[in-house]
Amino acid sequence: MLTQPTLLLDKDKCLANIERMANKVKGSNTILRPHFKTHQSAEVGNWFRDFGVDCITVSSLKMAQYFATNGWTDITIAFPANILEWSAINELAAKINLNIVVESLESITFLEKNLSNVVGVYIKTDTGYGRTGINAEDYEAMQHLLNTLKTCQNLIFIGFLAHAGHTYQASSAEEINSIFQSSKQQLLALKTFLANDFPLIQLSYGDTPSCSVNSDFDGFDEIRPGNFVFYDYMQYKLGSCSINDIAVAMACPVVAKHEDRNEVVIHGGAVHLSKDALTIDDTTIYGHVVAMDGNKWQADQSLGEVVKLSQEHGIIKATANQISKINIGDMVGILPIHSCLTANVMKGYTTCDGQSISMMY
Amino acid sequence: MLTQPTLLLDKDKCLANIERMANKVKGSNTILRPHFKTHQSAEVGNWFRDFGVDCITVSSLKMAQYFATNGWTDITIAFPANILEWSAINELAAKINLNIVVESLESITFLEKNLSNVVGVYIKTDTGYGRTGINAEDYEAMQHLLNTLKTCQNLIFIGFLAHAGHTYQASSAEEINSIFQSSKQQLLALKTFLANDFPLIQLSYGDTPSCSVNSDFDGFDEIRPGNFVFYDYMQYKLGSCSINDIAVAMACPVVAKHEDRNEVVIHGGAVHLSKDALTIDDTTIYGHVVAMDGNKWQADQSLGEVVKLSQEHGIIKATANQISKINIGDMVGILPIHSCLTANVMKGYTTCDGQSISMMY
Repeated sequence: MLTQPTLLLDKDKCLANIERMANKVKGSNTILRPHFKTHQSAEVGNWFRDFGVDCITVSSLKMAQYFATNGWTDITIAFPANILEWSAINELAAKINLNIVVESLESITFLEKNLSNVVGVYIKTDTGYGRTGINAEDYEAMQHLLNTLKTCQNLIFIGFLAHAGHTYQASSAEEINSIFQSSKQQLLALKTFLANDFPLIQLSYGDTPSCSVNSDFDGFDEIRPGNFVFYDYMQYKLGSCSINDIAVAMACPVVAKHEDRNEVVIHGGAVHLSKDALTIDDTTIYGHVVAMDGNKWQADQSLGEVVKLSQEHGIIKATANQISKINIGDMVGILPIHSCLTANVMKGYTTCDGQSISMMY
Repeated sequence: MLTQPTLLLDKDKCLANIERMANKVKGSNTILRPHFKTHQSAEVGNWFRDFGVDCITVSSLKMAQYFATNGWTDITIAFPANILEWSAINELAAKINLNIVVESLESITFLEKNLSNVVGVYIKTDTGYGRTGINAEDYEAMQHLLNTLKTCQNLIFIGFLAHAGHTYQASSAEEINSIFQSSKQQLLALKTFLANDFPLIQLSYGDTPSCSVNSDFDGFDEIRPGNFVFYDYMQYKLGSCSINDIAVAMACPVVAKHEDRNEVVIHGGAVHLSKDALTIDDTTIYGHVVAMDGNKWQADQSLGEVVKLSQEHGIIKATANQISKINIGDMVGILPIHSCLTANVMKGYTTCDGQSISMMY
């Protein structure tokens, strides 16, 4: 019986999410190199193997080390390389096929000088998100890096890696698709421009919204979605998934009710859900509340929204009718806004049949 | 040498923070029952013993169990009791002096029926924050609970416990003080009103801003500040501390620079800092960036603000002059907005002289 805040993982939904994404590239020239930062779990990682996945993406060297220890031999760290970790990068590159990402001459020069083992290198390419990378249309800057990269012995240039994170600001599937198409055009144009000097350039593209609303990845050598393994309420609102595809929920005990202000207090705060939020019609929410039935949640039985979070407290706003269905001592389910961060604060899962699943911490 | 995101703890600053708060109640009738949810560490907890602290506050049963295992024998769980955990509450109450908090007849009735060991009970009292508790001026609701509480055998009524969390919305030390005075008046009036029936009522009051800007706690039996052990950038901006009192900082590697948009990219994201934010003059920030000198940070050497966070990326906005002082491969220090949540995501500390300090996870 659940008695305290617990991150539930519905394995069936999770397997269905993996299968759906794996099927999208089946028989095509594009491979699925899923991002494992969402689940950060060797066990969940293993579930991907049955769907033909043997190359993965991670977001830190530490995560690469963890998955390498757990049998993964082809890993891309999709984060601008941290040159302070050159020695550990070098060590890991001796054991597995390791790819890193660069976006500056300083990093390229430093790593080429210090590494003694071969690593694959992508140039981080910005197709409009504006977070990291070289602008995909800034051919001069690209060539500047490539001029040095092509002289390197230990850094082997593979191609361009982009993450169109601006799909998360989209307001419809059409808008997500338009960002996807624009990113694709930019990357293909860049590849064409460089085709004489670099005939083998690969294009690596990621983000769950794009990869969820599209099925045709022709032109990309690989896709790197991550969040789709669990999805979450944000992805549901973006149109990436149905509410029933969300494969994780926080089960939280109800500790108090304040009917006079339409509020319910749960043991479920920032340390359980993370403080990632979503603003819908001027209301900021930290989770969508649904009814529980034993160890399973009922995604379509809404009981309100989490509207305030302290360290351990969550405040649910609900209608009088919803509140009448909630008692002190009940567990309610919270569909997280951002499952990656919820998993990260919880550092472990419980499947709906009670099995514990550990993470890298 | 620091090579990856590391939560640094300056032990000297931390000890000075503990000493300053302990000195405020020294020789008075008020005791310091510090909230340990901020550090969640047995080792940091032990530092309090030298300053005469032997009673503590926690925010969950799990945290109470952890500190009880580490030698603490007088613990208040300052969170509306989760009745689903009655069995573990009962077990812990057999071993230590355990106090819990209630705010409903349902919880009182359920716990009295199920517990077989004695626990101290506070009624959670709302002095204006509006998160949990019974309104301090709603004497009818208070008496309703007290009528049942006084018949209980295992729940021993101690008094009223309040947390004036609305001090965090204050814009000056004067405003914090005015909330403190108003809370105090409400609690003293309530105590006076009930003095005939309950002559031994105790008043427990907490929140770091109130306890930092005040020194006179006459009328309160105990104070329960927590965050003061580390403080953070939010407390500094509230006026609770000086910037040099902040005892923790995230050291983060610089991985990229984008001078054209005055940005620097660090390995330091939501999984390192948490997503708690502060809005100053319409700009939302996730941390205040300062220079590092070896394993120490220089609190007065500003290098900008963290203005965007992804899972692992942090984006610093800085002036051209500040950016000119930052190189790829440097470490920068980030004073966290909310040190409780930063500590919670990091799950451990490194002191400035390189010692690892574990937390309850």
